[in-house]
Amino acid sequence: MNKAVGSQWNATEMEEAARRHLLSPSEAMEKLGQSARPLLSRGDGIYVIDAKGRRLIDGPAGMWCTQIGYNRREIADAIAEQALQLAYNSPWYTVNSPSAELAARIAAMTPGDLNRVFFTTGGSTAVDSALRFVEFYNNVLGRPEKKHIIVRREGYHGSTALTAACSGRAGNWPNFDIISDRISFISSPNIRLAGDKDEAAFLDFLVDEFRQEIARVGADKVAVFLAEPLLASGGVIIPPKGYHARFKAVCEEHDIVYISDEVVTGFGRCGEWFASEKVFGVVPDIITFAKGVTSGYVPLGGFAISERLLDKVSGDNARGSNYSNGYTYSGHPVSCAAALANIAVIEKDGILEHVRDISGYFAERLHSLADLPLVANVRASGLVGCVECLVDTSSPNVTDFDKRIGARIDIHCAELGLIVRPLGNMCVMSPALIITREQIDDMIGILRQGIERAAAEIMAGELV
Amino acid sequence: MNKAVGSQWNATEMEEAARRHLLSPSEAMEKLGQSARPLLSRGDGIYVIDAKGRRLIDGPAGMWCTQIGYNRREIADAIAEQALQLAYNSPWYTVNSPSAELAARIAAMTPGDLNRVFFTTGGSTAVDSALRFVEFYNNVLGRPEKKHIIVRREGYHGSTALTAACSGRAGNWPNFDIISDRISFISSPNIRLAGDKDEAAFLDFLVDEFRQEIARVGADKVAVFLAEPLLASGGVIIPPKGYHARFKAVCEEHDIVYISDEVVTGFGRCGEWFASEKVFGVVPDIITFAKGVTSGYVPLGGFAISERLLDKVSGDNARGSNYSNGYTYSGHPVSCAAALANIAVIEKDGILEHVRDISGYFAERLHSLADLPLVANVRASGLVGCVECLVDTSSPNVTDFDKRIGARIDIHCAELGLIVRPLGNMCVMSPALIITREQIDDMIGILRQGIERAAAEIMAGELV
Repeated sequence: MNKAVGSQWNATEMEEAARRHLLSPSEAMEKLGQSARPLLSRGDGIYVIDAKGRRLIDGPAGMWCTQIGYNRREIADAIAEQALQLAYNSPWYTVNSPSAELAARIAAMTPGDLNRVFFTTGGSTAVDSALRFVEFYNNVLGRPEKKHIIVRREGYHGSTALTAACSGRAGNWPNFDIISDRISFISSPNIRLAGDKDEAAFLDFLVDEFRQEIARVGADKVAVFLAEPLLASGGVIIPPKGYHARFKAVCEEHDIVYISDEVVTGFGRCGEWFASEKVFGVVPDIITFAKGVTSGYVPLGGFAISERLLDKVSGDNARGSNYSNGYTYSGHPVSCAAALANIAVIEKDGILEHVRDISGYFAERLHSLADLPLVANVRASGLVGCVECLVDTSSPNVTDFDKRIGARIDIHCAELGLIVRPLGNMCVMSPALIITREQIDDMIGILRQGIERAAAEIMAGELV
Repeated sequence: MNKAVGSQWNATEMEEAARRHLLSPSEAMEKLGQSARPLLSRGDGIYVIDAKGRRLIDGPAGMWCTQIGYNRREIADAIAEQALQLAYNSPWYTVNSPSAELAARIAAMTPGDLNRVFFTTGGSTAVDSALRFVEFYNNVLGRPEKKHIIVRREGYHGSTALTAACSGRAGNWPNFDIISDRISFISSPNIRLAGDKDEAAFLDFLVDEFRQEIARVGADKVAVFLAEPLLASGGVIIPPKGYHARFKAVCEEHDIVYISDEVVTGFGRCGEWFASEKVFGVVPDIITFAKGVTSGYVPLGGFAISERLLDKVSGDNARGSNYSNGYTYSGHPVSCAAALANIAVIEKDGILEHVRDISGYFAERLHSLADLPLVANVRASGLVGCVECLVDTSSPNVTDFDKRIGARIDIHCAELGLIVRPLGNMCVMSPALIITREQIDDMIGILRQGIERAAAEIMAGELV
């Protein structure tokens, strides 16, 4: 196999090219052109290897996506084979085998009657297209005023103009506009914000707030409730038990479409193909997915949708309508071949079973950090967890100083061989799903040292 | 290499899976579930092979994207190699070699000072992110009211909520909403709509209309002019000579960002890496790209942006801003490796030179169809052209009957071995860039027969 790529330049030249020619996601504009992000040169299992040859545990698994780990020949072979067979076809008027087979496979994984799949290029376009489907749906049904979207603060749903406007993380907003006439935000179901309420009372409060928001906007105007099963980049926020079913019931009362955004939780992260029903007890109307569907090897996303919804706007109910939405790369044969190979590996290696088997140990080890100074809260579901660090562990408020603690922990852990990449003050662990008990021990051991070092710095007055 | 994909099911089973489980782009809802689109099983050079083993010239090159043709081992090897080396990295805090090298390569291809590149997952997200950059830019500059986007009727810019709203093709709209408070449409620069004006007078009219629209909205409110160099899916509409430079001058007068959408024209379609300056005489502020950048083998898109613009909102001018936009798959290593291998093939095989060399012959052969009944107009640029068919060839108006002629020509040509897939009444030819003179003869010969057969059907009263 010829090494076609990047062979001419060394790491320094690559970093120089990145510094001079890339505009990167979340670019801090003040430093544009002054430095490049660290160059990764290789991946292997749960590890990445940087340009200096250092081997690090990839704590976030890329961006919660490299489920089966790096350097899997099964995927490389499948995409090369498909690229030779049929590298592309227009999904506007033809179909390819991998997309048809993948749609059937996903339909079999989803709960309820979510039996039809629309493919896009990633999570943002999956959510954007799902929201556009609901717009289309209500227009065809002759109720064009039913357009309003209700989302949660701290939720994250993407980076297109529409999906970014649906993302409640305050950090996404400065210098971007909010589409406030069509989108509104309700509380994050974060128990740490419950004040003196217990979990049941907090859930009642959240449901009541949702009902009030629907009443405020007008039920005839509310089209969508869009929610992650757990708020992933919001900090692995796990809602009170029964939350999703209660919200779904309210949606049904008011003919509101419930979209479960499983871009993070799908494809094994919580030990199931999809977490909505089996982990969180809800059968939504639409499930969006991306990331884990290919273990991140090739871009792919999409949504699965309920037959019941489709029946209302198809066949005799179509009213001449055309779902005139789609991407050049919808159902891309190479992307779908990667997904099928990924699913085959997950099945062959029993990775869902492995996650269910090991997630208790993962949670236990994470919770073992609770004795450390700075650790205010630990939470986990499947193979995703969060260690929230605060100087004042009794307060739910996060200060700028707390966020700097996160950055210090990150630096210490990187030196010790673990990528943490905290979300502010929150150290999220979301490793490749193939992680072993020993590797969990390594990961948590390094995280412990990293937190201890940061705590020592604070004690010594070195971090102010 | 193991054949992991699709080996269990035969073509009939695949089509059944597609029929039952896919929601496809531009799905006609009335027929949902009743039939599947034709299954393609292989690609080879400029040809695709369907499930029945029939070999067809791929007239649209997928969707104007398979520049170097199907079944190129160079790309398959490069993506497999990269998938083993480093299949994924988070662009939020790391960088990979292929994206850095590709950004540098693209910066060297673009005109002017467009030296920095932001990567996305395709054309829609490229335009969406470019528009979001301008939103960010004007917010950072303290003029949040400068948000309005001016586009052309018949333009096409994507399928996210925002980019679809910027697309002026009427067919995209039914049952989707128009963001009319922020986007407005001016005339398509289609000379057939010029009435009795000559090209120079028509251009004056178009520029004047643009000025009037800016005045109507208010120059302090207009942020962007977004335009394809030639309106591709609008029907290969080539604007009057000097159009883009005149529009760019108006943009400069009013501090409006000029975005040239080169998703179709980029990467060799018009015989250059980018067509904006070298073919259409304009140096825009931003160029968007996708499709041809990987010859469609793997999803990828992005935009290149002017240093001058970036300088105004970076370094000392950053005002603490963060370009908090980006995708999980921004700068995806496998996508970027495909692009680098694609560029290497284009260079090694002299494909840009080939396009420049053969485009005159392509145009001449297309124009040879002008003697046929039904052919109202023929136009071409590089290796993209359009044969517009109308019963009344003297009228610029397109009837529903004319569109049915397009569908008949499509059917006849498919039987004869050519995919046309007309845009209504317009037969667009946009083959792989490696097409030879002999293959152009085959393609045009079949198109001639297809048009003759449709014309004979009309004469015989078989098409009413």
